[in-house]
Amino acid sequence: MKTRAAVAFEAKKPLEIVEVDLEGPKFGEVLVEIKATGICHTDAYTLDGLDSEGLFPSILGHEGAGVVVEVGPGVVSLKPGDHVIPLYTPECRQCKSCLSRKTNLCTAIRATQGKGLMPDGTSRFSYKGQAIHHYMGCSTFANHTVMPEIALAKIRTDAPFDKVCYIGCGVTTGVGAVTNTAQVEPGANAVVFGLGGIGLNVIQGLKMVGADKIVGVDINDDKAEWGKRFGMTHFVNPKKIDGDIVAHLVELTGGGADYTFDCTGNVEVMRQALEACHRGWGESIIIGVAPSGAEIKTRPFQLVTGRVWKGSAFGGARGRTDVPKIVDWYMDGKIEIDPMITHILPLEKINDAFDLMHRGESIRSVVVF
Amino acid sequence: MKTRAAVAFEAKKPLEIVEVDLEGPKFGEVLVEIKATGICHTDAYTLDGLDSEGLFPSILGHEGAGVVVEVGPGVVSLKPGDHVIPLYTPECRQCKSCLSRKTNLCTAIRATQGKGLMPDGTSRFSYKGQAIHHYMGCSTFANHTVMPEIALAKIRTDAPFDKVCYIGCGVTTGVGAVTNTAQVEPGANAVVFGLGGIGLNVIQGLKMVGADKIVGVDINDDKAEWGKRFGMTHFVNPKKIDGDIVAHLVELTGGGADYTFDCTGNVEVMRQALEACHRGWGESIIIGVAPSGAEIKTRPFQLVTGRVWKGSAFGGARGRTDVPKIVDWYMDGKIEIDPMITHILPLEKINDAFDLMHRGESIRSVVVF
Repeated sequence: MKTRAAVAFEAKKPLEIVEVDLEGPKFGEVLVEIKATGICHTDAYTLDGLDSEGLFPSILGHEGAGVVVEVGPGVVSLKPGDHVIPLYTPECRQCKSCLSRKTNLCTAIRATQGKGLMPDGTSRFSYKGQAIHHYMGCSTFANHTVMPEIALAKIRTDAPFDKVCYIGCGVTTGVGAVTNTAQVEPGANAVVFGLGGIGLNVIQGLKMVGADKIVGVDINDDKAEWGKRFGMTHFVNPKKIDGDIVAHLVELTGGGADYTFDCTGNVEVMRQALEACHRGWGESIIIGVAPSGAEIKTRPFQLVTGRVWKGSAFGGARGRTDVPKIVDWYMDGKIEIDPMITHILPLEKINDAFDLMHRGESIRSVVVF
Repeated sequence: MKTRAAVAFEAKKPLEIVEVDLEGPKFGEVLVEIKATGICHTDAYTLDGLDSEGLFPSILGHEGAGVVVEVGPGVVSLKPGDHVIPLYTPECRQCKSCLSRKTNLCTAIRATQGKGLMPDGTSRFSYKGQAIHHYMGCSTFANHTVMPEIALAKIRTDAPFDKVCYIGCGVTTGVGAVTNTAQVEPGANAVVFGLGGIGLNVIQGLKMVGADKIVGVDINDDKAEWGKRFGMTHFVNPKKIDGDIVAHLVELTGGGADYTFDCTGNVEVMRQALEACHRGWGESIIIGVAPSGAEIKTRPFQLVTGRVWKGSAFGGARGRTDVPKIVDWYMDGKIEIDPMITHILPLEKINDAFDLMHRGESIRSVVVF
């Protein structure tokens, strides 16, 4: 079949909207009509040529929502008409990782996904006879895409595509870091470094689980209003305090935070986040992606005296199990998404969404088909 | 009263055996007759002048066992004749840390303990009218010492002092890192870096909880036999393998260890220990004490992909609650201590114990009174 897609033919060039060829689903695969897709910093990171493992040509996009059109042989959990969210972290429920019950990082199709291919080692997309790579196993910048069954979360049919697509990455990454990775308990004090989209979702996750102090840290005062909108109780601009930011935060949280979250990708901030934790039990969760080669550092004494350093990918969420729950939380009003969707555009304007992001003028832009 | 003690009058000098003056127990305090004490690297670290916060003159020693002689007013949990192990990490059960249920690092008397004083801000020891500092709240290199009630674990009376004194530090630090800090489950694969006394106790803790592969790593081949003696299943000498030690250990453990333990204090080894963990869930526990100013480093990607970096102090044990249990484990034959006590000496020979340790000729030397 033919479908309309925004193709990244090479790095550092605008996406081109073209009709591409798409092969139907093979064994264990599903054809999905994408209804809406968010534009995430990770897409920009690849398009800007910053990911040394980035592949071109490819169809980017990994934060979508849509409807099942056709299922290939062997597919048992989905049927045409089902609403789904594509998962760049699948959940096969069979591999060593899934069976460990300790991680969401399913490894069933990791090797081929990293090569921009479907699990059988081929691509379903082509343009004028040339194969086009899949991206993060999703490629949601196409009106139709083919996905493995294990990489689709089935969601309720009354959830709006142009909102819940954000659950495909940003919302789950932030909220899940609180609920799955840190498992924050009611009454905890927390500090969130970086109030972009991920930071705001961490904040609303903290509010949902009943955290006490929710301290937001950002060098941009304009972010304070956004943080308060989602549950932040205290704002700190490190450029505007006297003395050491860590000492300031330890004081503000009555001895150190129970949980801190780095949503900046800055390794110096990651160190501050660890050291602002309470002696004895504070846990610091790294969510942000650091520049290639950058390293985190601290004195081991910080850990020996009880602080814990961990990280979170896709919010520690098992996609098929947890993503439908987060959709429910949104539909039940436990978390908000609508105010974070600052821009809705047609596919033809998708390059504008990247421009808005680079200028810091959007929380989340969503393309609707 | 008078009691015999080995006094550290100044750094880098041998201890001197003298009769010191000891005041009786004040409110909430207990007079203990020390029957046996281990000599630990931490004592040597202070005596060698490496601890910038070391205080002199002082009576060192923090790994003892003894009998209650007299209790001060207000003491309710102990009476004369009770057998006890002094705790350099007390357990008041009242402070924010104890009540958190998340840490063993009781903070009730931390400030005065760090100053070498009893909780009321004074010392009970003196020599020729000059105050002598307490050490780690214990000072077990004296035949009698005064301790706060909250810093004494009451143990069964049939346990031999010259063995269970080792539970006052080394045994609990190693075994407890497995049972309390890491909470290792049966069938787990683990790697232990450094096969000194702590490493051996980690190994026997792993054996006790039913770990599968127990890999010992040491640059000294002579340690292999010791490791096997306590449950090590595989030995690796990093100097004798081709290529990268981390890759070798990941291969040996079938994808990475579920748990790794650093018992070396070397920050480069700490990094290897983290990176030898399994993607998704491996946890690395720092036990060793690093040189002042040394820093651990890694790429944050190691944490974002699921590895966890933490530390352990006194094996995460709540002294009054957990130390008596470890004594039971020893008496029940679940763990061994006897073969680790390589030397037993009278107090007059205590400086020999330091020499044996510095030459690497002892696992644990114990002084008996």
